[in-house]
Amino acid sequence: MSEYILVTGGAGYIGSHTVVELINNGHKVVVVDNLVNSSYDSIARVEFIVKQSIPFFNIDLRDHDKLSEVFKAYKIKGVIHFAALKAVGESTKIPLDYYDNNVNGTISLLNVLKEHNVKTIVFSSSATVYGDVTRFGDDRYIPIPEECPLDPTNPYGRTKFVVEGILKDIHTSDPDNWKVAILRYFNPIGAHPSGLIGEDPLGIPNNLLPYLSQVAIGRRDKLSIFGNDYKSHDGTPIRDYIHVVDLAKGHIAALNYLHKLNESGLYREWNLGTGKGSTVFDIYHAFSKAVGKQLPYEVVGRRAGDVLDLTANPSRANKELGWKAELDIETACEDLWRWTTKNTHGFNVEGYSWKTFESDGNYGNRLHTFVNGDLTVALANHGALIQDINFDGDHIVNAYDNGDDYLLKSNPFFGTTVGRVANRIANGQFELNGKTYNLPKNENQNTLHGGLVGYDKENFLGPIVKKEKDVFIVEFLLVDPDGKNNFPGDVENIVRYFIDNKSIKIEYEARLLNDKVDATIINITNHSYFNLSGDATTDDTVVKLSYDNYLEVDAKTLLPTGNVIKHDRVDANKPITLSEDTFYDYCFVVDNDADAIDTRSHELKKVFEATHPRSHTKFVVSTTEPTYQFYTGVGVNTKGFVARSGFCVEPGRFVDAINNKKWAPQVILKKGEVYGSIIQYDLSKV
Amino acid sequence: MSEYILVTGGAGYIGSHTVVELINNGHKVVVVDNLVNSSYDSIARVEFIVKQSIPFFNIDLRDHDKLSEVFKAYKIKGVIHFAALKAVGESTKIPLDYYDNNVNGTISLLNVLKEHNVKTIVFSSSATVYGDVTRFGDDRYIPIPEECPLDPTNPYGRTKFVVEGILKDIHTSDPDNWKVAILRYFNPIGAHPSGLIGEDPLGIPNNLLPYLSQVAIGRRDKLSIFGNDYKSHDGTPIRDYIHVVDLAKGHIAALNYLHKLNESGLYREWNLGTGKGSTVFDIYHAFSKAVGKQLPYEVVGRRAGDVLDLTANPSRANKELGWKAELDIETACEDLWRWTTKNTHGFNVEGYSWKTFESDGNYGNRLHTFVNGDLTVALANHGALIQDINFDGDHIVNAYDNGDDYLLKSNPFFGTTVGRVANRIANGQFELNGKTYNLPKNENQNTLHGGLVGYDKENFLGPIVKKEKDVFIVEFLLVDPDGKNNFPGDVENIVRYFIDNKSIKIEYEARLLNDKVDATIINITNHSYFNLSGDATTDDTVVKLSYDNYLEVDAKTLLPTGNVIKHDRVDANKPITLSEDTFYDYCFVVDNDADAIDTRSHELKKVFEATHPRSHTKFVVSTTEPTYQFYTGVGVNTKGFVARSGFCVEPGRFVDAINNKKWAPQVILKKGEVYGSIIQYDLSKV
Repeated sequence: MSEYILVTGGAGYIGSHTVVELINNGHKVVVVDNLVNSSYDSIARVEFIVKQSIPFFNIDLRDHDKLSEVFKAYKIKGVIHFAALKAVGESTKIPLDYYDNNVNGTISLLNVLKEHNVKTIVFSSSATVYGDVTRFGDDRYIPIPEECPLDPTNPYGRTKFVVEGILKDIHTSDPDNWKVAILRYFNPIGAHPSGLIGEDPLGIPNNLLPYLSQVAIGRRDKLSIFGNDYKSHDGTPIRDYIHVVDLAKGHIAALNYLHKLNESGLYREWNLGTGKGSTVFDIYHAFSKAVGKQLPYEVVGRRAGDVLDLTANPSRANKELGWKAELDIETACEDLWRWTTKNTHGFNVEGYSWKTFESDGNYGNRLHTFVNGDLTVALANHGALIQDINFDGDHIVNAYDNGDDYLLKSNPFFGTTVGRVANRIANGQFELNGKTYNLPKNENQNTLHGGLVGYDKENFLGPIVKKEKDVFIVEFLLVDPDGKNNFPGDVENIVRYFIDNKSIKIEYEARLLNDKVDATIINITNHSYFNLSGDATTDDTVVKLSYDNYLEVDAKTLLPTGNVIKHDRVDANKPITLSEDTFYDYCFVVDNDADAIDTRSHELKKVFEATHPRSHTKFVVSTTEPTYQFYTGVGVNTKGFVARSGFCVEPGRFVDAINNKKWAPQVILKKGEVYGSIIQYDLSKV
Repeated sequence: MSEYILVTGGAGYIGSHTVVELINNGHKVVVVDNLVNSSYDSIARVEFIVKQSIPFFNIDLRDHDKLSEVFKAYKIKGVIHFAALKAVGESTKIPLDYYDNNVNGTISLLNVLKEHNVKTIVFSSSATVYGDVTRFGDDRYIPIPEECPLDPTNPYGRTKFVVEGILKDIHTSDPDNWKVAILRYFNPIGAHPSGLIGEDPLGIPNNLLPYLSQVAIGRRDKLSIFGNDYKSHDGTPIRDYIHVVDLAKGHIAALNYLHKLNESGLYREWNLGTGKGSTVFDIYHAFSKAVGKQLPYEVVGRRAGDVLDLTANPSRANKELGWKAELDIETACEDLWRWTTKNTHGFNVEGYSWKTFESDGNYGNRLHTFVNGDLTVALANHGALIQDINFDGDHIVNAYDNGDDYLLKSNPFFGTTVGRVANRIANGQFELNGKTYNLPKNENQNTLHGGLVGYDKENFLGPIVKKEKDVFIVEFLLVDPDGKNNFPGDVENIVRYFIDNKSIKIEYEARLLNDKVDATIINITNHSYFNLSGDATTDDTVVKLSYDNYLEVDAKTLLPTGNVIKHDRVDANKPITLSEDTFYDYCFVVDNDADAIDTRSHELKKVFEATHPRSHTKFVVSTTEPTYQFYTGVGVNTKGFVARSGFCVEPGRFVDAINNKKWAPQVILKKGEVYGSIIQYDLSKV
């Protein structure tokens, strides 16, 4: 059984960055967060950064029983405890909430730890516990060492002080077993260099750099500088700003230090700071430089409680933990600016919302809804599937209304991404670079749609959602590991949806992640069932297929014979009215000479059109792909849906291409190359 | 709607004494206690002391919803918050439990207070928060003033310190509304002068006097004196011992101070101490004097953490609260010794146990079980009733198995105490001292068994339980107020059961409490239904009545004619076998010339005997009373019981005595006199 690090408050600013570093350092992580002051999107993005899923539970630490369930489900070897309210000003207004969340939350956590005999904890404390270190009347505690007496001056700081005391008493009560690291942060700044995660303060930011970054993007007018008559080089107060990635790494160092203690316990405090003070103006200039222009500011009077210098003496952490802050404020400012410009409203994207989708409320499969004018699209992590396309009030795809039903055996691939190799592979067998691969046969003698656990049965990571020029860009990620369904190679798959107010473009992108194999095979498509009728079946839909040649198949095996011939019941662009008597399940050919693994630069060709007299919706499919399967859904028989309840148009590569010398290059993805394709759905009313 | 003071931890040592003082000062009180370290018996005894019932809820403060219900049911105007774990030594071993109970419990309480807009709180803190006041290297903080910096040296003290900080922060957040009194106790000693309540430590006592008292009664060998080489007059350390009653009064003073603030808020700390230090030997000698002999002791080495002098400077409380400790250590020692000798095992009495009896779990009506050899008796507060008499395995009284059923309309007075006036009062009317009283008529034209809400429908206070020479003495109390059921005068009623291993003696005692009236009328008895058959009816029981004269009654009104005549179907001491055909409901006369209001000094005469061939149980009733009603239960028709399921033998005064000039003195209770009577049940096997 794997051992996990539990990160409480892992969806927050420092928490999320620490989760990245934990995973980068080979730890497995479980995150618990009540999301009252953070966003799950940060975890979805961390998953993207680390390319793996992270168990997440929306739990308040004060919920003893739910928290205990996590410890029953995962073997926890240690805890990094961030979860807390953290705004100094707010804490003076609602102190009871601070004590309840921060102190009571910790007591509850510690009760659960004790019950499950987990006695290693890294606690997220704060330099705030030192209080005003100038109170001694001299410089004896500047820069501040851990030995400095504690005297927090606000309820927030007192909650941290109280929790340090509780942890100390607990350690004293059982000194051989409890391993407690107290990390006292100075001023965390910056963001992950990926630009995917960063600080996302609610309301008016309390801290200098978040405020400055909102000035830079125009959300705030100007920066107020509280006093320029301090005894620093430029008159503004000195603080110890530390890059959040450095800070995150400090937690890994502390955790490793505790784990190396083996049989002995410990209670120890460490400052996490740079030891180098920067003034407000130093930060202002560094950030203005990152932005590329001088930002508006105004010097106003001193703020009550501010003091000249709060710089850390980090030498204890440097020496004992072998940790040192390495990133300078310039880097932090650049990283912050990247995060800010890529996420002007933090994790919030207008028109985008999500909810959990399965009855157990797991965060692995959520339903994401995008509203863009007349078009609303819903996508789920499971298979990165399309759960809804609602155009001007008409729902045009078959779907279940809950995530559980997508797990039904009778689910005919509703809306899902199909891969690693869509359609059939003859006898579940192929040769590649002289090696024969035998796949699980899940349809008679053949392998269909990727085998037993195809992409349609996986929860994709993400999505990362952006909105650029009124287009949602929604990116899902799936790492399909080497050997899964017996396919060779670790393949990273990106499914990218572009949603405007009348079209959905799907872009598939895949690559081998490493050197395990030289090549693999791939063919991805979407398996939506369309229905423009607003009724139980697609009868009376008028369709036009742009191409009428198709892959002839053996009547018995349903596998291509290798011949491309004209379909006897299809004429290009000639209307066909669907009815009880029409049956199609054929692969029509757009480009008989296709051999590209990445078709994205090819012409986007219209291949299919459909309208229905009842809804007046016109639905057009275009693609860069060389074929498209047209299927009238005669085999559908699942909860709420009958035969012909939807038709499929699935652009992709030639069926069983790998087993045909001429077609094979379409599906062979070599190391260093990129697989790519585009499918587009256009909607209008006629 | 009355306004209440909520006392958390009100069943504890200081809490229970404070409840007494609150009520003595005219406050109404609700008590909440989780009883983990205290006994509900203390509240039962407080009720005895103050002669009124006190709403009690067994609730852990951390149970937000249950606690909130109390605030919905009672209008709370302020809180005195005692509830906490309090053993210093234990706190170092299980600190998390201390933080959870004391800090988390307070946070939960404060959340509920805030929700119900109750912002007046007196907090039970401790001088422990000051820590070692000798740490300053001089005497500047001896005696200790409230300004002394805080530095508790153990988890218990830190929980008090943390809660003080929380209360301070909450006051700061809303300074106009929160009224917070912090009371820092020095060393509480002594007990209530009634001997009914006192300190009842679990396990080995941590404190000097409880330990010494256990030495005095032989539960501990000898006192250890930790060091006699301190710089005091006798070499032992100096502490500030304060009588618990003085301490309790300090809470009233603080509460009144807060209430007088009217529209302004406050956060203020007050020491509750005497300002006078006593050494360990001072206390030893005072207590030895109270006991009347020198107690064994041994001087051993100093104890880690002990310091010379921890005496309060109580002048702030003296001046601001107008409160001053008034009782000396000699008084405290005498009170403690009284409590100890009367309660050698604290609230615990061997063979006695209780449980709540009604489905809502209220503490007003509990079921009390007494096991004494072959005899087990169960009594409930409701009507001070007899719920079970189990002799050698045979249950001999009719009873319901739960408290709820006793509230059934069909309940024929099972086991209950009947009063204020048992049996009938003709036309619900009587004259007394020239005044005519009209009572509610609850049986045709008459008043039966005290009227609409007789003693049988009241929960008696208590019981106080003692065991002396293998006899349980169980005392219930009911104050029947002036005007209740239209009877004149506040009457205090005591029902006292004496239970040995083969008999139950019931003693009734009643008196007018004050000067409201010069006289009232009274006649109390017990209405148990006996059944020796072990079967549904009493058929085949052989009974002998010692007296065969009875009060002749008018056939229509069932009221006495005034004649005492021989019963035609009864001969003294001649066996009668009960059957379907036997019916008795007559008042037999023991003493035709009776005129005493207190018969307890009269001869206890055997009046009735019964045996049954199946159980071989012999049941004898004796009494000091002048009559006894014998009733064969033909009217019984209630849940689980049919006609003749039990017979009654109810000694008492003449029926409707008040309306017969000759008989009236039996039932007229005058101011300054005491009503009294005795009934005894003897059991044996034949």
